Amino acid sequence: MDSLARLTEIFTHFPGIGPRQAKRFTYYLLTRDSRTLSELARLIEKLKNLTHECLSCHRFFATEKGGKERCSICSDTARSEETLMVVEKDVDFENIERTKLYSGRYFILGGSIPVLDKEPEKRVRASALKKRVKDDIEKGALKEIILALAATAEGDHTERYLRELLNALIEPAQIKLSHLGRGLSTGTELEYSDAETIRNALKNRG
Amino acid sequence: MDSLARLTEIFTHFPGIGPRQAKRFTYYLLTRDSRTLSELARLIEKLKNLTHECLSCHRFFATEKGGKERCSICSDTARSEETLMVVEKDVDFENIERTKLYSGRYFILGGSIPVLDKEPEKRVRASALKKRVKDDIEKGALKEIILALAATAEGDHTERYLRELLNALIEPAQIKLSHLGRGLSTGTELEYSDAETIRNALKNRG
Amino acid sequence: MDSLARLTEIFTHFPGIGPRQAKRFTYYLLTRDSRTLSELARLIEKLKNLTHECLSCHRFFATEKGGKERCSICSDTARSEETLMVVEKDVDFENIERTKLYSGRYFILGGSIPVLDKEPEKRVRASALKKRVKDDIEKGALKEIILALAATAEGDHTERYLRELLNALIEPAQIKLSHLGRGLSTGTELEYSDAETIRNALKNRG
Amino acid sequence: MDSLARLTEIFTHFPGIGPRQAKRFTYYLLTRDSRTLSELARLIEKLKNLTHECLSCHRFFATEKGGKERCSICSDTARSEETLMVVEKDVDFENIERTKLYSGRYFILGGSIPVLDKEPEKRVRASALKKRVKDDIEKGALKEIILALAATAEGDHTERYLRELLNALIEPAQIKLSHLGRGLSTGTELEYSDAETIRNALKNRG
Repeated sequence: MDSLARLTEIFTHFPGIGPRQAKRFTYYLLTRDSRTLSELARLIEKLKNLTHECLSCHRFFATEKGGKERCSICSDTARSEETLMVVEKDVDFENIERTKLYSGRYFILGGSIPVLDKEPEKRVRASALKKRVKDDIEKGALKEIILALAATAEGDHTERYLRELLNALIEPAQIKLSHLGRGLSTGTELEYSDAETIRNALKNRG
Repeated sequence: MDSLARLTEIFTHFPGIGPRQAKRFTYYLLTRDSRTLSELARLIEKLKNLTHECLSCHRFFATEKGGKERCSICSDTARSEETLMVVEKDVDFENIERTKLYSGRYFILGGSIPVLDKEPEKRVRASALKKRVKDDIEKGALKEIILALAATAEGDHTERYLRELLNALIEPAQIKLSHLGRGLSTGTELEYSDAETIRNALKNRG
Repeated sequence: MDSLARLTEIFTHFPGIGPRQAKRFTYYLLTRDSRTLSELARLIEKLKNLTHECLSCHRFFATEKGGKERCSICSDTARSEETLMVVEKDVDFENIERTKLYSGRYFILGGSIPVLDKEPEKRVRASALKKRVKDDIEKGALKEIILALAATAEGDHTERYLRELLNALIEPAQIKLSHLGRGLSTGTELEYSDAETIRNALKNRG
Repeated sequence: MDSLARLTEIFTHFPGIGPRQAKRFTYYLLTRDSRTLSELARLIEKLKNLTHECLSCHRFFATEKGGKERCSICSDTARSEETLMVVEKDVDFENIERTKLYSGRYFILGGSIPVLDKEPEKRVRASALKKRVKDDIEKGALKEIILALAATAEGDHTERYLRELLNALIEPAQIKLSHLGRGLSTGTELEYSDAETIRNALKNRG
């Protein structure tokens, strides 16, 4: 395989990209100037050096000046340590942070667990989460863990796994384990709602 | 305009139908046999005679054998009179009923109120709702009115209108006025959720 | 089944209409006034009386004042009898007529023939087409039959069937049997074109 | 802007990529191993060294072993020099080549000319095309130039520009200047065809 074909093949592994768009990426790059290509290549080459996986919440963050082990959220003493929100992915974290509605701490699970998966501990940062919760309990500030997972079968399965994983830790410490409220999301019309959503909307009415 | 063009024009007023599909409807009917056309014509001609708007909940129901003033739900003494669910449209009622999750009574509002609408009382069955609530309060069984409206700006505006409309009636009688719970609806992923949905999901977590 | 359910069921057989939209049609009609319903019912009931299948081209046309056996196109002596365009459906005829690019005559086939169909003569007006062509040949004006069928496998199969059907008639009379040109249709980009379209576009270049 | 944000920004300039998917690309790369990142970075960095713009047809091709000035098609003496097909983009060339229906030569225009564009010579390889055609005429084999452009307003405008550009060269040499045939492309149904397509399909019938 020649270098153009190889580059195109790598692009086909990018999320949501098929062979045709991968090819368009390659031709797009061919028309860029050398400076742009060099910058892109350098950013990709140094990606691991320029970023760090936060020791506390495990999200990736840029560390231009080096040295930091904890991300800006985890280092921010103004944020409450009473709540720990567990999200699946870095982009979930970013979306929630953008709303400015939550001022507690986070933990990035790194994935979710398919319903019939045999090795769930390989899908998510299970032992890292246990360690984080144990540490937080020892520090004494933690009061609630919020499971902010997708409202899907896979999200529900992941929640069951995490409840079992954390139960022995949080029960003695009387930490609340909550999940995000279910009901009508913005834009929902009753005519098109499924039974599960109506059930939750009725149960959580207020 | 000839009869084919007129028939096509009437079909263009059907919900969600453009000129092209309206024309296809007309040609479709042209290929049906006379018996099918006669049956369809009779059902449409007699629609008002064969159906009745329920005096209690205002939904339309078939009254083949004549005589009934109240629909099967409103006549069903097994259904609780403690809760009255207000929905916008007949299809909303049908969808909720299909879930078999609700065993109280209904009121069909007949529409919703656009945000800047000048004559809201013409958009919905406002006086009929007031009368229904007054009667229910006098009968003494009603405990809660559930506003089951769309989770949209128009639904929210309709809710504000109804709260004002009913306030003087329900406050002295200590009737609860609730709305459907907001949060993640089935299938929602955090990455794509809007701030309003996240706000509700956080508020209603449990 | 009650009358509302029956009406909804009939609507589900309309082209492109599913159960949900069929229900919305029924509720839409319930909110119309009696005059509108009566007019619609009358138009449907009288559809067969108010329309006529043209004896020459077999398209349906409105015959309010009664009496006519041939449609406006077939009765129009200004239109050339040298070309006969065979189309699948009434809407195909309408679309071509709207372009004002063709001033010959038409024949509405009434359908197309699926590739493995066992009884093609039941799918299209085969004997009526043969009779029409025979009559046109006897009258002496016909020079070309244009098969204006879909550029699909089913259209191609229908063309093969019609060529065989008409061959014995048109060969002795030296009638040309043509089909619509293939190539790039408006809006086509080369990047997304299939091999068949490129083959035709190359062959028909000029 | 930190390095992650900068990498994401570069991805937003990729064809068809919005801010959300650009972010997903960045997070996707963060989870790749160093070897994959290094290979991707190297391919991008060396893209200009590893590829060459063919001196004859101006398409980009991989030149691992170095040295070549002409691509495999332009160097292939088995391909006819009688026809020169002018296409807009490298992907158009690839799509046509995949059909194996054309055995002549190519010229990649590098773009198309918007209808009201003031500087068309900057949009396409105008002077390179003139030079190529002049050389081909001098060599004596060229008989036909096929303009294989999109069947859009922009494609038509580009064709007019190229005809004017090449006219003085090809007229004395009696080179034919053709364009791809227009008509029904594969899958087209008459009901949905625009007037332009029907006009071409009628004109090119056969």
